[in-house]
Amino acid sequence: MKVDLVIQARWIIPVKPESVTYEKYALVINAGNIIDILPIKDAKKKYQAIVLEQLDNHILLPGLINSHTHASMSLMRGIADDLPLMDWLQNHIWPLEQKWVGEAFVRDGTDLAIAEMIRGGTTCFNDMYFFPEITAGQAIKQGIRACIGLIVIDFPSAWAEHSEAYLKKGVALHQQLCNESLITTAFAPHAPYTVSDEPLSKIRALAKELDIPIHMHLHETQHEVEEQKNKTSQTPLQRLHQLDLLNPSFMAVHMTQLSDLEIDLVKKTGTHIIHCPESNLKLASGFCPITQCLEKGINVALGTDSAASNNDLDMFGEMRTAALLAKGVSNNASAVPAMTALKMATINGAKALGIEQKTGSLSIGKAADVIAIDVDQLETQPLFEPISQIVYAASRHQVSDVWVEGKQLLKNRNLTTINCDDLKSRVSEWQLRLKNNINL
Amino acid sequence: MKVDLVIQARWIIPVKPESVTYEKYALVINAGNIIDILPIKDAKKKYQAIVLEQLDNHILLPGLINSHTHASMSLMRGIADDLPLMDWLQNHIWPLEQKWVGEAFVRDGTDLAIAEMIRGGTTCFNDMYFFPEITAGQAIKQGIRACIGLIVIDFPSAWAEHSEAYLKKGVALHQQLCNESLITTAFAPHAPYTVSDEPLSKIRALAKELDIPIHMHLHETQHEVEEQKNKTSQTPLQRLHQLDLLNPSFMAVHMTQLSDLEIDLVKKTGTHIIHCPESNLKLASGFCPITQCLEKGINVALGTDSAASNNDLDMFGEMRTAALLAKGVSNNASAVPAMTALKMATINGAKALGIEQKTGSLSIGKAADVIAIDVDQLETQPLFEPISQIVYAASRHQVSDVWVEGKQLLKNRNLTTINCDDLKSRVSEWQLRLKNNINL
Repeated sequence: MKVDLVIQARWIIPVKPESVTYEKYALVINAGNIIDILPIKDAKKKYQAIVLEQLDNHILLPGLINSHTHASMSLMRGIADDLPLMDWLQNHIWPLEQKWVGEAFVRDGTDLAIAEMIRGGTTCFNDMYFFPEITAGQAIKQGIRACIGLIVIDFPSAWAEHSEAYLKKGVALHQQLCNESLITTAFAPHAPYTVSDEPLSKIRALAKELDIPIHMHLHETQHEVEEQKNKTSQTPLQRLHQLDLLNPSFMAVHMTQLSDLEIDLVKKTGTHIIHCPESNLKLASGFCPITQCLEKGINVALGTDSAASNNDLDMFGEMRTAALLAKGVSNNASAVPAMTALKMATINGAKALGIEQKTGSLSIGKAADVIAIDVDQLETQPLFEPISQIVYAASRHQVSDVWVEGKQLLKNRNLTTINCDDLKSRVSEWQLRLKNNINL
Repeated sequence: MKVDLVIQARWIIPVKPESVTYEKYALVINAGNIIDILPIKDAKKKYQAIVLEQLDNHILLPGLINSHTHASMSLMRGIADDLPLMDWLQNHIWPLEQKWVGEAFVRDGTDLAIAEMIRGGTTCFNDMYFFPEITAGQAIKQGIRACIGLIVIDFPSAWAEHSEAYLKKGVALHQQLCNESLITTAFAPHAPYTVSDEPLSKIRALAKELDIPIHMHLHETQHEVEEQKNKTSQTPLQRLHQLDLLNPSFMAVHMTQLSDLEIDLVKKTGTHIIHCPESNLKLASGFCPITQCLEKGINVALGTDSAASNNDLDMFGEMRTAALLAKGVSNNASAVPAMTALKMATINGAKALGIEQKTGSLSIGKAADVIAIDVDQLETQPLFEPISQIVYAASRHQVSDVWVEGKQLLKNRNLTTINCDDLKSRVSEWQLRLKNNINL
């Protein structure tokens, strides 16, 4: 049988089934989908490849899913570090956003984020930011998968005047994007303290009607929880539950403050947790108790948050930090073993985003969202256990090739859809504007 | 004036003076030492370089100092992950060491570690392992700076039979190495629970006589502290103080368990702390309270520990983890800012090792231990603050060039003293031996 692409690899870690590593296997791709995974010797007999890739020193993985981003904030990478959250937001990030965020900012910032993500093996991101139509357009243009957040916030921005306007623009954008194979959408009410009950109730109704998920910051800091409790004697989580928002289509981002009862509520409602360990550390927000949550059977996915509070979009680093931090915080060296961290960065993300049928594992019938990691470098030698090596030793700089829906976006470390020099010069203009806070 | 080498760089971060970044400066090197740092335009007039390096998109830093390693254990990278400390040691690491550790193991493992360290911008390491004469020989051969631990432990190993024999071999090795410009030595009693009072007292006397430091694991786990308290009603730290070991020549590695009184004792005695955040996380050992220690004025340096419990020798990663973790643990986003993390990985290490006069900063009169980081990659763009970018965004894979005592060990990512293919084939033989636990 003639097929578009056969990738022969030294190892394939499909993620599903779990804890399995195929050695000297081939991944067979046709019309953008995975149609077979079998020993190389059998693939040679069964398939004629139009394109044949031989990756003798590589591990193939499903593309990583970054389940929480504000992509275009990459333009503010490192502009204000080592500051407490509210100083960072109120005196640095928000004033800059107010002055600069617009279509051009989101276009260039999203391109920078997409380029970094592809180079780091991320094939799908779950975004929340202003001008989501621009983010969606750039994702489609550059060939990466994305879940586009239809942002809602009580305050005016350059994108919309009030929550009603955000909602209207969001629904229109959803309609516009609903036939794009790379794109899904989610309502993205910013946070409990920035979105009031009325728009939240409308979002709940619309999300059910349109059958799309909701993506929201929740219990990011102790301050957030205490402020709400002082106002209403409810925690933000309890308030959202009362508003009937918690269900298997709800992605709660951060969740650093959780009582045992609240963990039970998250489990009972099927709510997904998006864990952002590096951002939570950098802003000193607290520790999400993921070991307990995973033990309860809650689906925990992984995100970097924006490059302004991380300061990278590196899912390899995030897996490693998630695994190491969970061991430290739970005082248990066996907590969040390598395979669990890898699932958090792949299949668990796909589940949270509601696209498990399409991506998140190298499974027959799913889209060919695939990455190759060259482990023939001193930093990943010797190699006893491929899954462990990916999480604890490999770097995103070892990602050699990336495909999304079978289309190659990174070829031997070179981006195929983005012109790096042009992008760098656009970023460098933004650097001047933001640093001096003046128009060029 | 004619000089060996002039490196023109976009930025130079000397570390001393602190928080300073020179832009478009040149570093002037002659006979292995830094003899000037001045604006490029002035350097052009004043010096004729035999070799001129133009690094227009780079940051120059002092070489990083990895203040706690067991270099040759790199051969066991990833051989046993996600296990509790005692299971890991007793059922995996120690049996393998007992069977395999010898001259060949230490030679090949040290080469692997040195290659990884040079490629990652580390120019000096502080080692503790068996066959230290082999480690020293490989460091000299490959051109990297090292403080060689003269290991002492109550138990027999392939290297020595009993503590008296370890001490004798250690002193002889010290004499043999004392004229090597790249090498210093330190007594390296393994840990309080593996070295008894008598050899510790001898070490104290010999260290004073020979004027060399002592490098020791201390308060790594709660178990260690409690076990000792049950035996003697003293903590290990108190016991070492009673034995008169704590002073400005003592490096205490790990220190995850420290009361306020003990922090005062560490400060009062001038003891240095070597913080290994990733190893402490991976083995769930606890959190060293570095924010408090730094506030008290204690010198805190940074180490990776071995690649068997990390699983890399990446000082960029370690700086980032140290800065992020300190913020999380101390609930303060301003704790351990970027400059502090950078000092921990450079000048603080040099102070702990007693080689501050020679290395740890780009200062006139010090050895030319220098690294260049290429920040013209998307992952480090835009660039608002070079020091912040180094700690929070840059990767060791961006280290382009490395010099130790003015000799270039890494040139545009290529090792100059180590043959990578030969090294990989030696490592791959060890992989087979260790994995199958059989002689080849």
